[in-house]
Amino acid sequence: MSGGSRTARAIIIGNELLTGKIADKNLTTLATVLRRLGVVLERAVVIPDVAEVIVREVREASVASTWVFTSGGVGPTHDDLTIAAVASAFDEEVIVSSELESLIRLAYGDKLREGHLLMARVPRGARLVKSEDIPWPATLMRNVWVLPGVPEIFELKMKLVEEVVGAGVPFVSLAVLTTLDEGNIKPMLDRVVLDHPDVDVGSYPRWTDPKIRTKLTFDGRDRARCEAARQAFVALLPDGAMAGLEG
Amino acid sequence: MSGGSRTARAIIIGNELLTGKIADKNLTTLATVLRRLGVVLERAVVIPDVAEVIVREVREASVASTWVFTSGGVGPTHDDLTIAAVASAFDEEVIVSSELESLIRLAYGDKLREGHLLMARVPRGARLVKSEDIPWPATLMRNVWVLPGVPEIFELKMKLVEEVVGAGVPFVSLAVLTTLDEGNIKPMLDRVVLDHPDVDVGSYPRWTDPKIRTKLTFDGRDRARCEAARQAFVALLPDGAMAGLEG
Repeated sequence: MSGGSRTARAIIIGNELLTGKIADKNLTTLATVLRRLGVVLERAVVIPDVAEVIVREVREASVASTWVFTSGGVGPTHDDLTIAAVASAFDEEVIVSSELESLIRLAYGDKLREGHLLMARVPRGARLVKSEDIPWPATLMRNVWVLPGVPEIFELKMKLVEEVVGAGVPFVSLAVLTTLDEGNIKPMLDRVVLDHPDVDVGSYPRWTDPKIRTKLTFDGRDRARCEAARQAFVALLPDGAMAGLEG
Repeated sequence: MSGGSRTARAIIIGNELLTGKIADKNLTTLATVLRRLGVVLERAVVIPDVAEVIVREVREASVASTWVFTSGGVGPTHDDLTIAAVASAFDEEVIVSSELESLIRLAYGDKLREGHLLMARVPRGARLVKSEDIPWPATLMRNVWVLPGVPEIFELKMKLVEEVVGAGVPFVSLAVLTTLDEGNIKPMLDRVVLDHPDVDVGSYPRWTDPKIRTKLTFDGRDRARCEAARQAFVALLPDGAMAGLEG
């Protein structure tokens, strides 16, 4: 992964992920969007609903990366600790956003309970990012996006993320599918990797596919260089070993 | 999550996970097995194929937890750095295991290439864990299980993990499904949480389910206490709000 770029870290919060109850979907959603924006996602952590762990991770990540994305822990129940933890990471208090409170009152009408208003809490100094399409704002505290864990809502908020983070030079990803296994491919691949240091070459075995044994990927910001690396690799493959191209 | 228990950390390695190409499946597999064994999975990190990052994570995790599980980066290609990184984390060299070499020679026969033999590398001092059912061993370096990223193989190796890690007091997980949202539930839930500090209560909203709005979970090592917490919660629910029990 290249240096000098805009970078990001993900902090995925929830006991349910570490106890096997639910498989996270948000990392892939986030990674795909950041890739398109040209932001390097350096690392993700999956941590439990423990306030001091969240605080420490947010503090570390916000210094280390251009952007930080938290997922989960933003509801009104006792296990929702992210808003308070993000506030605490920046030595700020939690306040009630009158803008969020109005939205919540409007949404719930006469079904409103006190518990619902807990979702109006934000770290003091947080920005509420919204657009005409997406009236419910996303909370952005300094460089930390505080996003909900529910995958459908997390995905909706990506549009707001895209608008604020903005497009850079996106990453290109090209692929070759081959009938050879990694042990066979290795000498050809090593040569291509050596000749194309600016292309990130990945090799992914497929265990259950009867025909395609390995997928090779050629990623970078310069499409011509990715193409060149892929072509160099294809040229080294023996007859019949190329099973398809992607990207 | 309770203290004083056997603990674990997961280190999930691979650029493909941080670029959105592939969604990890191994964390949920591992978490489910550890839960059954009564081991607390404290944390998982998803990191790129960068040697020094892997070394640092392995070193940290192996000191902090009873067990560490790495996933990915054990093939023969240039982006497979985990074996060398785990060796380096313990200041050991990489050696060729004659046991693994024999297995590889047997498996590939006259299709063997030099590249295949790279999969015989292990950190010096690693233990090869196997059973009669699973002839291909798993690599265990001190307290670090070095597991492959391919989900089908990762899952196979869990049987070896279970045998070595051994059963402790497993966690029980009970659940209630309700028609109420989290804002409505909160006052009832807070009371149950307060009265059952030894039960880990989780609240999970469902966004797209038209009937069930929230799933509540009651986890712990003592089934009777989990039952008590769940019953206390159900007793507080208004008529018609209980939509099902699980576990």
